Amino acid sequence: MNRIPTALTAILAFSTTGIADQKAAIRGFFDSSVAAEIAAENEVRGAIDPARIRENMKTLSARPHHVGSEGDRANAEWLLQQFKSFGWDAKIETFEVLFPTPAERLLEMTAPEKYTARLEEPALAVDPTSGQKSEQLPTYNAYSIDGDVTAPLVYVNRGIPADYEELDRLGISVTGKIAIARYGGSWRGIKPKVAAEHGAVGCIIYSDPKDDGYALGDVFPKGALRPEQGVQRGSVADMPLHPGDPGTPGVGSVPGGKRLPLSEVKTLTKIPVLPISYGDAEPLLRHLTGPMAPAAWRGALPFPYRVGPGASTVHLRVKFHWDVKPIRDVVATLRGSEFPDEWIIRGNHHDAWVNGAEDPISGQSAMLEEARALGAMARKGWKPKRTIVYCAWDGEEPGLLGSTEWAETHAEELDRKAVAYVNSDSNDRGYLGVSASHTLERFFEGVAASVEDPETHVSVAARKRLNAIHAAARPDPDDTDPDEFRDTPDQVRARREGRVDALGSGSDYTVFLDHLGIASANIGFDGEVEGGVYHSIYDDFFWYTHFSDTDFAYGRALGQTGATTVMRLAGADLLPFDFGGLSAVVTRYVSEIRREAEKLRARILEQNREVEEGVFAAILDPKKPTVAPKIEPAPPIVGFAPLENAAAKLSDSAERFDRAFDRAVAAGAGGRNLAEANARLLRAERMLLSDAGLPGRPWFKHQIYAPGFYTGYGVKTLPAVREAIEQRKWKLADDEIAAVARVIDREADFVAGIAAELDRPRQ
Amino acid sequence: MNRIPTALTAILAFSTTGIADQKAAIRGFFDSSVAAEIAAENEVRGAIDPARIRENMKTLSARPHHVGSEGDRANAEWLLQQFKSFGWDAKIETFEVLFPTPAERLLEMTAPEKYTARLEEPALAVDPTSGQKSEQLPTYNAYSIDGDVTAPLVYVNRGIPADYEELDRLGISVTGKIAIARYGGSWRGIKPKVAAEHGAVGCIIYSDPKDDGYALGDVFPKGALRPEQGVQRGSVADMPLHPGDPGTPGVGSVPGGKRLPLSEVKTLTKIPVLPISYGDAEPLLRHLTGPMAPAAWRGALPFPYRVGPGASTVHLRVKFHWDVKPIRDVVATLRGSEFPDEWIIRGNHHDAWVNGAEDPISGQSAMLEEARALGAMARKGWKPKRTIVYCAWDGEEPGLLGSTEWAETHAEELDRKAVAYVNSDSNDRGYLGVSASHTLERFFEGVAASVEDPETHVSVAARKRLNAIHAAARPDPDDTDPDEFRDTPDQVRARREGRVDALGSGSDYTVFLDHLGIASANIGFDGEVEGGVYHSIYDDFFWYTHFSDTDFAYGRALGQTGATTVMRLAGADLLPFDFGGLSAVVTRYVSEIRREAEKLRARILEQNREVEEGVFAAILDPKKPTVAPKIEPAPPIVGFAPLENAAAKLSDSAERFDRAFDRAVAAGAGGRNLAEANARLLRAERMLLSDAGLPGRPWFKHQIYAPGFYTGYGVKTLPAVREAIEQRKWKLADDEIAAVARVIDREADFVAGIAAELDRPRQ
Repeated sequence: MNRIPTALTAILAFSTTGIADQKAAIRGFFDSSVAAEIAAENEVRGAIDPARIRENMKTLSARPHHVGSEGDRANAEWLLQQFKSFGWDAKIETFEVLFPTPAERLLEMTAPEKYTARLEEPALAVDPTSGQKSEQLPTYNAYSIDGDVTAPLVYVNRGIPADYEELDRLGISVTGKIAIARYGGSWRGIKPKVAAEHGAVGCIIYSDPKDDGYALGDVFPKGALRPEQGVQRGSVADMPLHPGDPGTPGVGSVPGGKRLPLSEVKTLTKIPVLPISYGDAEPLLRHLTGPMAPAAWRGALPFPYRVGPGASTVHLRVKFHWDVKPIRDVVATLRGSEFPDEWIIRGNHHDAWVNGAEDPISGQSAMLEEARALGAMARKGWKPKRTIVYCAWDGEEPGLLGSTEWAETHAEELDRKAVAYVNSDSNDRGYLGVSASHTLERFFEGVAASVEDPETHVSVAARKRLNAIHAAARPDPDDTDPDEFRDTPDQVRARREGRVDALGSGSDYTVFLDHLGIASANIGFDGEVEGGVYHSIYDDFFWYTHFSDTDFAYGRALGQTGATTVMRLAGADLLPFDFGGLSAVVTRYVSEIRREAEKLRARILEQNREVEEGVFAAILDPKKPTVAPKIEPAPPIVGFAPLENAAAKLSDSAERFDRAFDRAVAAGAGGRNLAEANARLLRAERMLLSDAGLPGRPWFKHQIYAPGFYTGYGVKTLPAVREAIEQRKWKLADDEIAAVARVIDREADFVAGIAAELDRPRQ
Repeated sequence: MNRIPTALTAILAFSTTGIADQKAAIRGFFDSSVAAEIAAENEVRGAIDPARIRENMKTLSARPHHVGSEGDRANAEWLLQQFKSFGWDAKIETFEVLFPTPAERLLEMTAPEKYTARLEEPALAVDPTSGQKSEQLPTYNAYSIDGDVTAPLVYVNRGIPADYEELDRLGISVTGKIAIARYGGSWRGIKPKVAAEHGAVGCIIYSDPKDDGYALGDVFPKGALRPEQGVQRGSVADMPLHPGDPGTPGVGSVPGGKRLPLSEVKTLTKIPVLPISYGDAEPLLRHLTGPMAPAAWRGALPFPYRVGPGASTVHLRVKFHWDVKPIRDVVATLRGSEFPDEWIIRGNHHDAWVNGAEDPISGQSAMLEEARALGAMARKGWKPKRTIVYCAWDGEEPGLLGSTEWAETHAEELDRKAVAYVNSDSNDRGYLGVSASHTLERFFEGVAASVEDPETHVSVAARKRLNAIHAAARPDPDDTDPDEFRDTPDQVRARREGRVDALGSGSDYTVFLDHLGIASANIGFDGEVEGGVYHSIYDDFFWYTHFSDTDFAYGRALGQTGATTVMRLAGADLLPFDFGGLSAVVTRYVSEIRREAEKLRARILEQNREVEEGVFAAILDPKKPTVAPKIEPAPPIVGFAPLENAAAKLSDSAERFDRAFDRAVAAGAGGRNLAEANARLLRAERMLLSDAGLPGRPWFKHQIYAPGFYTGYGVKTLPAVREAIEQRKWKLADDEIAAVARVIDREADFVAGIAAELDRPRQ
């Protein structure tokens, strides 16, 4: 119904033939080498075949394939054979990891009436794999401790720290209670962690139909959304402390290696946890008494949401088999012709919670098709300058196990050789999402300009940019960014590149970026599919081929994006990093945090004043009593000058680098010797680490990006500083401002040094 | 649980003994007369008795008492006797009005399955008056036309113009369809009006549980909210055109007077309309197909909200008895001793849709208690300087009939004599709400400072002010006011007065303010009661005494507020008007409208640009097709200088008046002769009328305030200008800017003239 005017089609239409257009998009290639690159890329992108991606998915999602299952083992073997058949040097690397599975699961309401939760996702006649009951993992949260507790229930909304502040205002405590939280608003492992910090003895996590059920559309199998008995499985280990095998923090869990005894493992939950469906949550929540839940907490079940405690009392018993299981990473290599010790790493996990057609097989299937196309090119004589490593990770779902253990095992070699890590995971329909090190922001704009969007036939970069204009003109009222950090439509129009988002956590890039300082990216298409089968038995081939990227057009686009990324990184004459994007976001993050600190200070001072002038006494409704906040210590004004100076210095270095880079590329093969510059560029992201890591979590060493200690997935940029302020640790904030400023300062020197190297006359 | 610190109790505690404190709050009294005023007020406020208010409610809500019913007649007679027994000169004035009642009501879904709507609110055993079936009006919307239509259903959210713009984007038309709209977001009569403008052949209005049902709390009789079969009755006449008897626009419908034939009545709906419960709406909405409703449209019923058309086809038949019925206004007078031809008018309606304990008897019962207390004072020798007129209106519910017909009948006398009209209606628990002519803003701050809040024992002014500080520090994210028009907490602290809101429509002040230019106010307490019995059989004594102001403490506070207001207006030496508040809001309204015009222009230009650059083509999801907007004519830049100049002049006059007023009051009885100033002050609000009225609706003559043509209840300030811009009538906007500027300019001259009169040496 929405027709593209003919004139516009001409302007925006994607072209694979216009070499001049594409050349501008390809960073780091000499004039003399760009034509060959374009030809090779065009051939590879043309070879990516949706029918093969579909077949890959059909095979890999045919049966449940969680860690330790026969399906998981068989998939790893099949993937190995595929890589080998494509001409890659492939092997399986095996690790041994702690992987608990349920021995007992009981949830019952004991008052005001008896209800025993079903804890079971029914098979559906129309959906062939949903009936593979003997191979399915039951619904549970991995790394919950064993436990048997009976207590009144309290509804805690998302279960994040801000929710407990609201409970304090209502005079409600979870101490000695079982907390029931709804999925969303944080990574799930945060919910039991924060509940335990507040004294809860157990935690139930449920999927509210407001978030991924009938409130958004028809439920499966009529539609894509979560049916009444659908449950989201998932890990609840304390991954913001460290991901990977809980028994081998910081080192690879090679077979037979040393492991912590279970009693010394730090990332298990403190209280028992169980995920449930909204079908099972409904009777528990319906009977709650106590104050009405705040308006923003209310879900889509058809009754008043109350907080409790009162009426609903619940008995939760969970017990697990605490087994050590093997995981199998499939690692395939194509050796570089010119710089074999510079590695471009591409990865996607292969394990799932159940059949996992979307998560992760949609991404895995596309990545495998990339590998086939690249292998075919190599057989025809195409030679990447750098070594390409394709990895199909096992054990991502329980805790990024396969990628973390592999990278910890090979840490020293990766530190020397890794140029970049490019991840994907679930893939749907819509817009290209790129979260990445900002040193790759300009690079990815070029990649996105070279891939065609299958629905609109403009480049995925153009589609994303036009969507950003549309969104900027219609700001989301729930967006809490201050105006100064929101782009206007004209700012979007004026920008050279689309923005890449900062990486938090939630997939296998984590160890590469946060622990090893390897420039990383996560790519995938989404935005046009609302689904509610995540981590359930219904995430399967039937669901995916009815409700997501049904013709695998976006699987093809993902394969094209991945292949283009890898080929350009592997083939560039000069590695296509850029520091303008990094310095811009660092400057922006400093402004943001300064403003957050100012707002926090103003809010505390205002609230103290209100307490003193009797505001809370005056607004008290005696029929809905609330507890006035207490006077809090007045926060200091935090000084950000060290960070501001460091950011300014980085900006200068970035500009200097830019000019040197352009001169070097323009000079071409006849210019400076670039091997040294490449070798240094590869290390630029390493300079953003600190040995000590973040306060209280030394595994996380990157000083620009980390998953939040209380968000889990969500990124905290300049995390040491930002979290110190959020947690009102003013002395720590001052110290971290100085320490992070030194890291950024060092990066600025390092980048200036590369620029000088590029400008140095050839020896 | 929220304790007031002892020291604060002392600071904020309300005192009726400190005459010095109260003196400051009382505007327009000489030093020599203020002590007597305070003593009289204290006695009256002390006399207001919650037990009597409760008895009044019990009597007046004992049975259904809608227009034309025996209960309505009996209540009028009883009120008459009460006023007489209190010593007032009281009478009943009768008018004859068009009042349709249902002859036939049928709503059935004919596809995809058969469902016949119940259209019936069940009696509840615990609630004694809910079973008075023989006297209850059936659920219906008054002034719907007769009709019998069968058509597919389309869900139109609130059914306001913006919702149809969203439908356009979805490619959905209501032409030839039946629109189903949910209550809220506008006055209900807007919904069928806008549906008909878009070609719908019928309109159903239902109460979504998200708005006043289980999403907010327990439903009646367990809690206060709307039960499954509860229905909101109500008028759907086109009242933004004119309120009052549809058959006698602009003139009083005295018995035997001339009336328009039904065929010439302009304010009936264009299509048949019926209100239903969410119990009846559920099957209709559940079967809708078509696109998902936009997220903000989705209610709390447990299924996906779709827009239609598709699947649900509906048959609607309504037929009415088009009767002319008598209505009985009870009018009681206490003659002024000094200025008998200056009238202070106080009113509250007495008719209800059914038993109407909250609406309107909570207000009526308190007003009657005021009249008793004032009558008792008069018997003891208290003499108000001005004439006090208490009015218990009939026929408010169908269309402000009693007040409108009375005021139209006595228009000439009111024009000469009316100082102010003070309205109340439903009263609950919480905060004093004052909507008023801004010429009374300072006056009402003094009134509010003299009434004690029964829950917190600070003055209702202090409670309101502290709540405003609290709210200002926590801005509602849904509030679309630009930052510059939001008070900060410190701005609230710095203001001398609390703000009064501008008057829209929805109760009996409308004819006084909008048609006759009499300074008006609407007072009542609310903010702590969420109810869902509005206009249903459950709005009764049982509901009110279980869930609202159960001990009538706020009934007492309303009576105290009303009596204080009336006594001060009636007893002031110099009428306590002020023009600083008026000039401040006029200045603010002009800024707001200028900004709205700029934003509208920017939005249209931006959208045109997006159409040209292919944004809508690029964001098209082929599985959820949308229709791109069309290029719109670029709006001109609107010039506001005439209004800005007039507002500045009014501000100067207001300051001059302020100084003259203070000098005159300070001079006391020995100062200037104030009779002429009082006589002119009484007319200051009249100067804000224009004879021509608003464009297209000449009955509405006030140029500062009017209910919006597409909001019904909600006020549009500087309505002629604001609506011209909203409706993109640029030429009209220019003309109205000039015309309204002339009205404000005339007001400025008039106010300056009063100041000069006050400063003129005594003759």
